[in-house]
Amino acid sequence: MSRIAFIGLGVMGNPMATHLAEAGHDVAGYNNVPVREAAFELSGGRVATSIADAVDGAEIVAIMVPDSPDVEQVLTRDGVFDHATPGALIVDFSSIRPDVTVDLAQQAKARGFRLLDAPVSGGQKGAVDASLSIMVGGDTPDFVAALPIFETVGKTIVHVGGNGAGQTVKAANQLIVAVNIQALAEAVVFLQAHHVDLSSALDVLSGGLAGSKVLDQKRENMVRHEFRPGFRIELHHKDMGIVTAAAREAGVVVPVGALVAQLMAAARANGDGGLDHSALLLGVERLSGLGTSSPLSP
Amino acid sequence: MSRIAFIGLGVMGNPMATHLAEAGHDVAGYNNVPVREAAFELSGGRVATSIADAVDGAEIVAIMVPDSPDVEQVLTRDGVFDHATPGALIVDFSSIRPDVTVDLAQQAKARGFRLLDAPVSGGQKGAVDASLSIMVGGDTPDFVAALPIFETVGKTIVHVGGNGAGQTVKAANQLIVAVNIQALAEAVVFLQAHHVDLSSALDVLSGGLAGSKVLDQKRENMVRHEFRPGFRIELHHKDMGIVTAAAREAGVVVPVGALVAQLMAAARANGDGGLDHSALLLGVERLSGLGTSSPLSP
Repeated sequence: MSRIAFIGLGVMGNPMATHLAEAGHDVAGYNNVPVREAAFELSGGRVATSIADAVDGAEIVAIMVPDSPDVEQVLTRDGVFDHATPGALIVDFSSIRPDVTVDLAQQAKARGFRLLDAPVSGGQKGAVDASLSIMVGGDTPDFVAALPIFETVGKTIVHVGGNGAGQTVKAANQLIVAVNIQALAEAVVFLQAHHVDLSSALDVLSGGLAGSKVLDQKRENMVRHEFRPGFRIELHHKDMGIVTAAAREAGVVVPVGALVAQLMAAARANGDGGLDHSALLLGVERLSGLGTSSPLSP
Repeated sequence: MSRIAFIGLGVMGNPMATHLAEAGHDVAGYNNVPVREAAFELSGGRVATSIADAVDGAEIVAIMVPDSPDVEQVLTRDGVFDHATPGALIVDFSSIRPDVTVDLAQQAKARGFRLLDAPVSGGQKGAVDASLSIMVGGDTPDFVAALPIFETVGKTIVHVGGNGAGQTVKAANQLIVAVNIQALAEAVVFLQAHHVDLSSALDVLSGGLAGSKVLDQKRENMVRHEFRPGFRIELHHKDMGIVTAAAREAGVVVPVGALVAQLMAAARANGDGGLDHSALLLGVERLSGLGTSSPLSP
């Protein structure tokens, strides 16, 4: 069993930290929003008073925060690099820019720490069920050392390369997911406009080559027009920025990824940022004049 | 058991007609390419000398030809309407324009026949394994009458609405499949450009929300750069024309579907029409300057 600092106790971090505590690790949780710390405490966790307090004596420093600047803040300014135990293994579960991960891993190494990028897929349900997919970038000995931690919170765990590779695979994941959602949304609006029985149609589509996890998991949201998150447009918008920038950097042209990044931005600009990403459906409806909130409506 | 005329004995029609003959139906096959008739004969089928001969006394007239004009030709000019038995049930397995299906169903009714549109998904493998998904449009009594035929060649069989509805669902299917392939292609080129281990990356992607039938069935083509059909770009290009026209007719805006239709057209224009649709990967490579055939290469 290890001493673990867990920084970031949100929708994903809270259940992950709880699983680790339940598995017998000594987990000190920290969040800059106290109400989230309270939730972790309620589920039996121990709450630290600061990042310095959380990382004190910890062999593993787990991080699950929203974006690249948040990880930079936690590591370089809020105290991990300044207060963590020499040799500590930093496991960054956040989804951030691959180039930022590479830079932070170099800084960590220079200060005597080790770092893995370990972004996850599977959403809140995957975090609660401890069935996350985890895409890990970093050195093999560090991956091996962190494996018991990964196996406590995830199911499909793959070491995909050196530092940054985990974030690169996560970026590709977010591209595919966004595009597959948009494809389903266009198909749903198309089928409804042609007055086809949507439920029967989706049944037969899921049985053929059009079948996907997105179709299985998002069809009900679209059929019911019910978009409570889930995974928010706001966060997927952030991820589309990451993948299009990383593609650009590598000289790869991703026409459909780029268009869906724009449609995700449009969803956010139209006030859907807090909805589940399946709300891309609303964008197709708006484009097709089927929205409920056209400014030209009487 | 029924007397069945089966018109169109190609990659799909031949195994379907063979399954029907093996199930004990009296099947007369016809194809305007004699070598295909010979293949059907080899697998134990009976070959008709003409469409008039094939439909003579048939209760069911099954059709599996490439495109809308081919179905029109077979029905209105090559002899089905002129020679079929009054009351015969025409089952059109071809993937064609929904509006053409509606028009032909009306003509069929006016001449005393019944017609179902019954396009399939599942490809050559689905036809050979008798595991096709079948999306059926038409009247319920006709659907019920044809059910034993459908169950002999397919697995997921859904009556989705009146005439044209089957074709509409098939069009939506082809939109989703094309877009999901393009998303995977962009992700694969992106991952390779970042030197991530592709096979590990695809393993972890398939375990999460990015997982799909397209990922499962097309990843090896992309990893091996091997694009033997399968389902040809040429035919998917035809289908993208159908779905974009049908969307336009219904006033539905499908930005990603339309872009992928253009990319499919580009693949065809660049000489990939005879390759499997997973060859959309080559288009992403060409756009990214990674093609092997740049006209500016030395």
